[in-house]
Amino acid sequence: MHSEELTIEGRNAVIEAFRSGKTIDKLYVLDGCQDGPIRTITREARKHDTIIQFVKKERLDQISATGKHQGVIAHAAAYEYAELEDMFALAEKKGEPPFLILLDNIEDPHNLGAIIRTANQAGAHGVIIPKRHAVGLTATVARTSAGALNYTPVAKVTNIANTIEQLKERGLWFVCADMDGEVMYNMDLKGPIGLVIGNEGEGVGRLVKEKCDFVAKIPMNGDIDSLNASVAMGILSYEIVRQRGNWK
Amino acid sequence: MHSEELTIEGRNAVIEAFRSGKTIDKLYVLDGCQDGPIRTITREARKHDTIIQFVKKERLDQISATGKHQGVIAHAAAYEYAELEDMFALAEKKGEPPFLILLDNIEDPHNLGAIIRTANQAGAHGVIIPKRHAVGLTATVARTSAGALNYTPVAKVTNIANTIEQLKERGLWFVCADMDGEVMYNMDLKGPIGLVIGNEGEGVGRLVKEKCDFVAKIPMNGDIDSLNASVAMGILSYEIVRQRGNWK
Repeated sequence: MHSEELTIEGRNAVIEAFRSGKTIDKLYVLDGCQDGPIRTITREARKHDTIIQFVKKERLDQISATGKHQGVIAHAAAYEYAELEDMFALAEKKGEPPFLILLDNIEDPHNLGAIIRTANQAGAHGVIIPKRHAVGLTATVARTSAGALNYTPVAKVTNIANTIEQLKERGLWFVCADMDGEVMYNMDLKGPIGLVIGNEGEGVGRLVKEKCDFVAKIPMNGDIDSLNASVAMGILSYEIVRQRGNWK
Repeated sequence: MHSEELTIEGRNAVIEAFRSGKTIDKLYVLDGCQDGPIRTITREARKHDTIIQFVKKERLDQISATGKHQGVIAHAAAYEYAELEDMFALAEKKGEPPFLILLDNIEDPHNLGAIIRTANQAGAHGVIIPKRHAVGLTATVARTSAGALNYTPVAKVTNIANTIEQLKERGLWFVCADMDGEVMYNMDLKGPIGLVIGNEGEGVGRLVKEKCDFVAKIPMNGDIDSLNASVAMGILSYEIVRQRGNWK
């Protein structure tokens, strides 16, 4: 599953990367540039649903490592993404009801790495992240995951709310973490479950929250109003572990 | 409780800082420097159990913000430290059995900040950190704690193992987190308790572990061998919260 982290620069190199099936997390293109090769590249990018950012020459020069970007720089994922099917296959292999973690726009690579690490230890079968407005599988994420990225499948989806809808059809229940929910100790968190964790600053988005079947609250006995996203994910995941009773 | 973070440079300024009662986290002194004012400063530092580091001139110049260090630079704490008594007073005020967090050499300021934040939300009455080989209350810790440092007392002690001994005399039980312990769900974690969390890389030290009454294990259902320290602390703290049943 591991592959090198890559900044790919220059037209031929970027076209080649797309055609070889490499996962490109982000594409930087010189603003206003419209010639044939660039159009080919942006067409490939749209086909693969890659985020394209049009930037000025100064910005491209700044991002460039080689100084020979020819108006285009691509950031390839440090790790290959998995498919949702890989997660169901893993759950089936372990003979457990699916337990998935869905992240609504986690931005901090340290949080994402810690979450993948905890997902692995809690026995979750996969982590689902959105394509936009969120950090991808960078080298920092890989390092912070302490090796868990080699075992726990991470999939990237276009829209978390739509993915929840799809997964409901496969029998999953969804619980998101929020302050206005029911205390998690009072809820039934057994069975096939998707745990949704919100963004560091704003929590779970409204559209995603509306798709969830339950809202779980971590008791807050203190003076401030929230927990770190990866800590909250750990606390909720282990309440699921406790209720499932599949610990050793 | 809040005070400015300060790098104090120059002999008079550093002597004055010690005499005014300011908490100095660390003192850098020019290696080989032995004159009267420097001897006065190191004497004050030893009296206050401040960590002294003797460094070469190049290193001092590098640390210096003003370029006028005169062979001595002190790092004052960004926040004032509390006393153990403050924690007992807080527990008494809330009518709860004491619940303290003891950290055996946490080195990462983001972990310390997240731990103080979680301690606050879990309703712990204080966090105890060692003077040496550990991060203190820096500006990064304050920021990562998301305001919790204004509410949750943090004390600095010379020796965690000795502090455990002292606190046992006041009726606390101690549990540390380690892989070879009993699964936390099977343990009784109610009553006056001290939760001991180990260093990021090495876990709880042998001497500290020997002082603990119990060793608690977070179930590990995954492929890797540990959790992030602040996530582990959150999971264990909330198992204590669950068992205490004092959540709202």
